[in-house]
Amino acid sequence: MASFVTIGERIHCISPVIREAMEKMNPEPILKRAKEQIDAGATYLDVNIGPAESTGVELMKWAVQLLQENFDNVPLCLDTANAKAIEAGISVYNRAKGKPIVNSADAGDRIGNIDLAAANDAICFALCSKDGVPADNDERMAYCQEMLERGMMLGMDPADLWFDPLFLVIKGMQEKQMEVLECIKMLSDMGLNTTGGLSNISNGMPKHIRPIIDSAMVAMAMQCGLTSAIVNPCDLRLMETIKSCDIIKNNTLYADSYLEI
Amino acid sequence: MASFVTIGERIHCISPVIREAMEKMNPEPILKRAKEQIDAGATYLDVNIGPAESTGVELMKWAVQLLQENFDNVPLCLDTANAKAIEAGISVYNRAKGKPIVNSADAGDRIGNIDLAAANDAICFALCSKDGVPADNDERMAYCQEMLERGMMLGMDPADLWFDPLFLVIKGMQEKQMEVLECIKMLSDMGLNTTGGLSNISNGMPKHIRPIIDSAMVAMAMQCGLTSAIVNPCDLRLMETIKSCDIIKNNTLYADSYLEI
Repeated sequence: MASFVTIGERIHCISPVIREAMEKMNPEPILKRAKEQIDAGATYLDVNIGPAESTGVELMKWAVQLLQENFDNVPLCLDTANAKAIEAGISVYNRAKGKPIVNSADAGDRIGNIDLAAANDAICFALCSKDGVPADNDERMAYCQEMLERGMMLGMDPADLWFDPLFLVIKGMQEKQMEVLECIKMLSDMGLNTTGGLSNISNGMPKHIRPIIDSAMVAMAMQCGLTSAIVNPCDLRLMETIKSCDIIKNNTLYADSYLEI
Repeated sequence: MASFVTIGERIHCISPVIREAMEKMNPEPILKRAKEQIDAGATYLDVNIGPAESTGVELMKWAVQLLQENFDNVPLCLDTANAKAIEAGISVYNRAKGKPIVNSADAGDRIGNIDLAAANDAICFALCSKDGVPADNDERMAYCQEMLERGMMLGMDPADLWFDPLFLVIKGMQEKQMEVLECIKMLSDMGLNTTGGLSNISNGMPKHIRPIIDSAMVAMAMQCGLTSAIVNPCDLRLMETIKSCDIIKNNTLYADSYLEI
């Protein structure tokens, strides 16, 4: 089995520092966050430029080249509602360390992103939802089938669709957590890759608790077969847990120094 | 679902301080360790007096009464190879907070402990092994069946047999860890209770790593349905993880203060 893939979430225009850096095309704040995440062990970096309707094409190209030139072609996840910006990013993307990821398709308005990924030999996150939170796992699996069929009809390798069960917030949807984990198990039993925004679960919790419950969840999800997640790699406890689960799953060989690698 | 049951492992004659206290029937060191574990959230306390061939009867009676009188009838797990000592302990045991646990039976020489538990309306740990480490889960499940049938023939409630898959050390048996977790899943799917000496997995690892990998393992095992474990409840990270998994499994209701309860 391959090791768990972590996608660093911290280059995101929701952060005022990053938003300003993107508006001014100022490299320093972006490079700083990239370095922090790579040093902390992130495999991929997510680059969220927001809707970026007018400036997206230029901005995504700039960000992709900036990050790959400075960090040895670090693989990237291109995250925006602007499809032309994703295509532009892929046009300058270097695949030496891994395919680009399109973030993201769903079974509703964003299903066209599967076509975009297929046309560009990219990985695509495929959110198992259409409009809002799926009612149950029957719905999630129906959306999965729709997206899987679409991707395969377009010639995609099923391994390039990374299905996201949609992690839900515990405060308000505590009784739904095992259903999400069960969905991961079903997707994994089909041999599919999986991903998701894990820290959704701890939204609204006191800050000091979030790494604790996120870590418990990632271990439970890895037991169910989760193969990747969009995370804050600077959350030490979370990364230690992911590395430990990779040891328990025999994905990586144990050494006393495994946490430092 | 019921909350996870933690059995505190720290009153054990392998500790020089505890051994001496047991030899001299000196209450203080034993009461101190009991208090630490109860304060840290242990449900049961294990009382391991060793083989105690000549003194076991008197010693176990003394320890049971000492602990229950000082800690509001804290439920106990009676841990010795001396069957007469276990019976003596049960004879003075107060069940107000839970049945006594017999630690432990297996499918080999120690199978008689199931009879002892049945005759005394006690819970019994049932190790899924006969002589040494079981070769695979077929063996584990065969031993489980043997012990389950024996207990049920003697009128035991199956819920009073807590099956132990035998956690194995990662350093040397890394490739066996998922098999152990799969066994827990099989036992859980049968509706059975499960337990085990979780920290076996991190034997021989650098001390600072052990809570990290033990915590990852307990979360994965709880996802598989593990209902209890013999642990060091003073391992804060482990206890935080157990409480968090109980929240995710909806075994306990979420509150921002759930870690402090």
